[in-house]
Amino acid sequence: MTRYKAGILGATGVVGQRLVQRLVDHPWFEISALSASERSAGRRYGDATRWNLAGAPPLRVASMLVRPPEPSEFDDCDLVFSALDTQIAAEREPMFAAAGLVVSSNSSAFRQGDDVPLLVPEVNVAQLALIERQRARTGAGFIVTNPNCSVTGLALAVAPLHREFGLRRIVVTTLQAISGAGADGPRAIDLVDNVLPYIPGEEEKLESELSKILGTVRETRVERLELDVSAHCHRVPVLDGHLEAVSLELATPVDPARAAEVAGGFAGDIAELDLPSSQGPPIVVREEPDRPQPRLDRDAGGGMTVTIGRMRTCSVLGLKFELLSHNAVRGAAGCAVLNAELLAARKLLPRRSGS
Amino acid sequence: MTRYKAGILGATGVVGQRLVQRLVDHPWFEISALSASERSAGRRYGDATRWNLAGAPPLRVASMLVRPPEPSEFDDCDLVFSALDTQIAAEREPMFAAAGLVVSSNSSAFRQGDDVPLLVPEVNVAQLALIERQRARTGAGFIVTNPNCSVTGLALAVAPLHREFGLRRIVVTTLQAISGAGADGPRAIDLVDNVLPYIPGEEEKLESELSKILGTVRETRVERLELDVSAHCHRVPVLDGHLEAVSLELATPVDPARAAEVAGGFAGDIAELDLPSSQGPPIVVREEPDRPQPRLDRDAGGGMTVTIGRMRTCSVLGLKFELLSHNAVRGAAGCAVLNAELLAARKLLPRRSGS
Amino acid sequence: MTRYKAGILGATGVVGQRLVQRLVDHPWFEISALSASERSAGRRYGDATRWNLAGAPPLRVASMLVRPPEPSEFDDCDLVFSALDTQIAAEREPMFAAAGLVVSSNSSAFRQGDDVPLLVPEVNVAQLALIERQRARTGAGFIVTNPNCSVTGLALAVAPLHREFGLRRIVVTTLQAISGAGADGPRAIDLVDNVLPYIPGEEEKLESELSKILGTVRETRVERLELDVSAHCHRVPVLDGHLEAVSLELATPVDPARAAEVAGGFAGDIAELDLPSSQGPPIVVREEPDRPQPRLDRDAGGGMTVTIGRMRTCSVLGLKFELLSHNAVRGAAGCAVLNAELLAARKLLPRRSGS
Amino acid sequence: MTRYKAGILGATGVVGQRLVQRLVDHPWFEISALSASERSAGRRYGDATRWNLAGAPPLRVASMLVRPPEPSEFDDCDLVFSALDTQIAAEREPMFAAAGLVVSSNSSAFRQGDDVPLLVPEVNVAQLALIERQRARTGAGFIVTNPNCSVTGLALAVAPLHREFGLRRIVVTTLQAISGAGADGPRAIDLVDNVLPYIPGEEEKLESELSKILGTVRETRVERLELDVSAHCHRVPVLDGHLEAVSLELATPVDPARAAEVAGGFAGDIAELDLPSSQGPPIVVREEPDRPQPRLDRDAGGGMTVTIGRMRTCSVLGLKFELLSHNAVRGAAGCAVLNAELLAARKLLPRRSGS
Repeated sequence: MTRYKAGILGATGVVGQRLVQRLVDHPWFEISALSASERSAGRRYGDATRWNLAGAPPLRVASMLVRPPEPSEFDDCDLVFSALDTQIAAEREPMFAAAGLVVSSNSSAFRQGDDVPLLVPEVNVAQLALIERQRARTGAGFIVTNPNCSVTGLALAVAPLHREFGLRRIVVTTLQAISGAGADGPRAIDLVDNVLPYIPGEEEKLESELSKILGTVRETRVERLELDVSAHCHRVPVLDGHLEAVSLELATPVDPARAAEVAGGFAGDIAELDLPSSQGPPIVVREEPDRPQPRLDRDAGGGMTVTIGRMRTCSVLGLKFELLSHNAVRGAAGCAVLNAELLAARKLLPRRSGS
Repeated sequence: MTRYKAGILGATGVVGQRLVQRLVDHPWFEISALSASERSAGRRYGDATRWNLAGAPPLRVASMLVRPPEPSEFDDCDLVFSALDTQIAAEREPMFAAAGLVVSSNSSAFRQGDDVPLLVPEVNVAQLALIERQRARTGAGFIVTNPNCSVTGLALAVAPLHREFGLRRIVVTTLQAISGAGADGPRAIDLVDNVLPYIPGEEEKLESELSKILGTVRETRVERLELDVSAHCHRVPVLDGHLEAVSLELATPVDPARAAEVAGGFAGDIAELDLPSSQGPPIVVREEPDRPQPRLDRDAGGGMTVTIGRMRTCSVLGLKFELLSHNAVRGAAGCAVLNAELLAARKLLPRRSGS
Repeated sequence: MTRYKAGILGATGVVGQRLVQRLVDHPWFEISALSASERSAGRRYGDATRWNLAGAPPLRVASMLVRPPEPSEFDDCDLVFSALDTQIAAEREPMFAAAGLVVSSNSSAFRQGDDVPLLVPEVNVAQLALIERQRARTGAGFIVTNPNCSVTGLALAVAPLHREFGLRRIVVTTLQAISGAGADGPRAIDLVDNVLPYIPGEEEKLESELSKILGTVRETRVERLELDVSAHCHRVPVLDGHLEAVSLELATPVDPARAAEVAGGFAGDIAELDLPSSQGPPIVVREEPDRPQPRLDRDAGGGMTVTIGRMRTCSVLGLKFELLSHNAVRGAAGCAVLNAELLAARKLLPRRSGS
Repeated sequence: MTRYKAGILGATGVVGQRLVQRLVDHPWFEISALSASERSAGRRYGDATRWNLAGAPPLRVASMLVRPPEPSEFDDCDLVFSALDTQIAAEREPMFAAAGLVVSSNSSAFRQGDDVPLLVPEVNVAQLALIERQRARTGAGFIVTNPNCSVTGLALAVAPLHREFGLRRIVVTTLQAISGAGADGPRAIDLVDNVLPYIPGEEEKLESELSKILGTVRETRVERLELDVSAHCHRVPVLDGHLEAVSLELATPVDPARAAEVAGGFAGDIAELDLPSSQGPPIVVREEPDRPQPRLDRDAGGGMTVTIGRMRTCSVLGLKFELLSHNAVRGAAGCAVLNAELLAARKLLPRRSGS
């Protein structure tokens, strides 16, 4: 199969680098174009990027020239992955869609759009139905989104419990990694011998995105799940991997062993598609008393598996546990790529380049 | 006033060092004797201790000889502060009480004892009434205790809310400092680029001690508060200062501004005693969106003030906030010293040394 | 004594905050004016500052209005302390001197100036002789400077050895704290599970400032010391306290015990002046095998004492040891204040305010 | 080819776990037996091990029973890898050799033995000549060793410079990772907001092992290189990867560009053997001003490549640079495995198991 030609918008940032890493040897996609800020345009990617992952940018990508974030510069692409900052994404992503491109976005700009899917493929493939309505509006390409990096893992972890027992209320406290804050994240001086009890906008995202992700699709609309979510968000001196302490109330109370069984047995709704980014189980349940831990568990399933541990009774809400997901993979770049794979598998990804 | 002669049991550990630090220039108490494990007995304190606080052990204390933890070795003391490990405390503290000494203990061994006060002086002076019953039993000295290091700050923070609005249910997630684990605490290899989602026994303490602390004293008994507490405990790479994210349900719902006013206005029940270890307000409420932080707020009020921030509505339980207290001071050594000061002020601390 | 009225230039940064902290209760100086960037001018200091030290800005200072960095705004001051960035200092400090103010600067802009003292008062009071020449040039006020934060501690540590045995060559490797990089210092993502082997411009400063500090003053000129210094500079995840591993060659070889005796016995040249910022010994030599350590030793002597340890034979250059000094105190704000105290004690600090 | 049957002594520690990781899918070796302390003997490896690497022990190994460290328990093995502590190794390794086994040891017990090779295969294959003499002594198996984890990277980095220009003197300062200290390494309380200026015994190893590694083999003896090495060793809060700042004097002075060329062009002496653990270049020279960094460069070449950066003139000794090598791979388990591969390739690894 000829690979789809893919562009990356915002390619020099933390999520952009992860997109490069996950796409450089991808069997279905080929990196054809990269954009970053105007300041970087025209420079070699390797020179324009403060590479933050092990080693150095892949050689082939390092020598590519960074383009300005203009749709006309991505004429040779079938789709673009967007790691743009929210405000820029709000302006630019519709321009790319209007130009006929499919946009798989990690930005929060359009997650709440009525006709924009907010996808966690294992959990809500049905939201693909919104695309048709969106295309009717744009007359051209369209945007699909993945959730905030602290939401994806939670959505995956609670989805099987919701399906089986009905989700009512969640109190969740996060211990989030630094890479979730992007390249302009916290200063070292703020995170040595310290943790931060506040991440701007994060609690609101946790409280609002979950009800859309777990909502019911009726024709081309998502009916949000009625759900109370209360979040306490923290930044901790960890590089990758968001840990979340979850207490929840289910419509049908369940004992912890049964909850662990349901979560651990969840296969997800895309297992039969055999997508390249979904090779492990969506959820792993560990038995040790002191797991999951960010450093030890974030790379489970190549960073795409959510690890659950310490499933036990909550004397207030009924059930509690810890979950860990790789914020930059499962919660960002990996999910954006998985979303595009899903589009391809479902024949929702047209080829524009005349290949 | 001649100062009381004080011994310190378990003087070489993390809490023991803090006791030395807080007692070395204390206006009411004078360090007269130190014990540690048998292995250390007979050595100079300065040689036997792997000092972990800034600088070096105070000169006068450094040259004192460490004694074995035998009551007969503390004949010259009026009281002892105990920083013994639980199992050793269970054996030794009653021996010291039986020998006629007052024991102000930081250990968990007797916190749940029917006739043992579990004191947070600003909040439950009434528990001193248990001493009479305990002395009737021992016929000699007695034991008073302070709560677990993650409980004290929470008890202080919620006490004024409980008095005003009635406390029903709490979900609390802790981000606890390393010094809370004592000298044999976590290894560096476990806390670089990592956090730990489990502290053995800690969640149980949070869930059981709070109801005794906030209980009602009827004659010489504590009637526990009916209260559901659900805790998620974590260890984070912070030296001192436990941060806790609290969601709670009150019998009388209250808006966050009013809750902040009540908490911030709490004077505590011992203000008029002017105890040396209680010179600041028990609680400070900060307005900044990103406070409290361990490094910036743990030393408020000399480490004895609890800092509250981010008071806001919880969509699940009604009210939520963050609190920070210095685990080794407010939550351990400082509270043990404050308890002894309270005993002295209330004429419950007899002098044994013939001064 | 009426206190001198002092201004602080660049008061909101890391060093600026330390200046506020050290001057707020100073017996000789009184904070009368604060400046920061144009953007902050007109705001309350408490609002304009991202306070990074424990607690909050002192109340009296927090409510002062930040002024623009214009000499005319500091008419009511006798002197200013400058924590300006180098480029801004290069432009502004001469304007303040020309306006008749004494400038005690922490910036590197004029450290190498022919008629500008580069002061470590315990070591080179003689450089005050340069002031006369400088004033002849400016016809008004003048600038004195303190060395780079990694240099001051080294200069202090080697000065007594140089006086006694003659210094020839130094290889020094630094492990520098984050606060040395100022408010725009390293990102957390670069210093978790990592150290950085490079600090722009730092090695050059180490190599060039030392020879001026230890130079010989002939009339009003400094004759630089002939000295080979080779530096390797690193940033490590420590908040405060630069650790330096030093190997050096002396003209007269000396055994480590004698070197420790000479360094530890050094009283400095200002002991008789009893300056407020110099209350401890300039150098402390510790005997433990694993000291100095940043967290344990940086606050020795209120942050003004340099701690030396591990004095031993170097098989290549003759002598080696570790030194630790508080970069933000001894190496910056504390030294700038000490320099001003020296000026006052030596009657080199005229009063401009009509007090 | 039938794989050699390999045992691992000390399999539960930090280096033992790395050996498991590197041997579990090895093309030439097969894990047949594991030992640990007496306390662990008889337990499943997965239960006896506090696994510290990502994920969990490989399934096949996790279910193997831990054996006591007795040669008779390893009858089915062709060779053993030893990650024993020095004192235990001093007693046990000769017992395994006497029983006819080849021992590839990471311990320091026999590194300085006259007839024991101290191998860095790219650099000193000639030391294999010592084996013959050793076998003559033991009449059975033999021991080969790899250097201390801080020495291997340095030996590799300086070897090509020594061959070309002659090495005379080295001043080296290390910033060493926590995993280098093994399972009982530093406590978290000692490495938050701190670095340690002392590692027991480490400086001596750096100073003594290098001259043997780079020595000249005459028949069956190593003639040590005359070389002055002076080391300053530090522990820093990094998980893996020792960073070393090196100043050195060469017999023939060389400019930094030429030195970089020689180091970067070094192919090593085993390139033609195509050993499984040596697939990348032995040394990579990076041009960026701020590399190598532990987190970014430790995994170069699968952890077996040493990264050099900042090659520049040293005003004291002539040449200086930074080097980074993965202490647990290149400096321990990886080198032990590479040594065994070398033995196999050179027909020095007899098969005992009747396969």
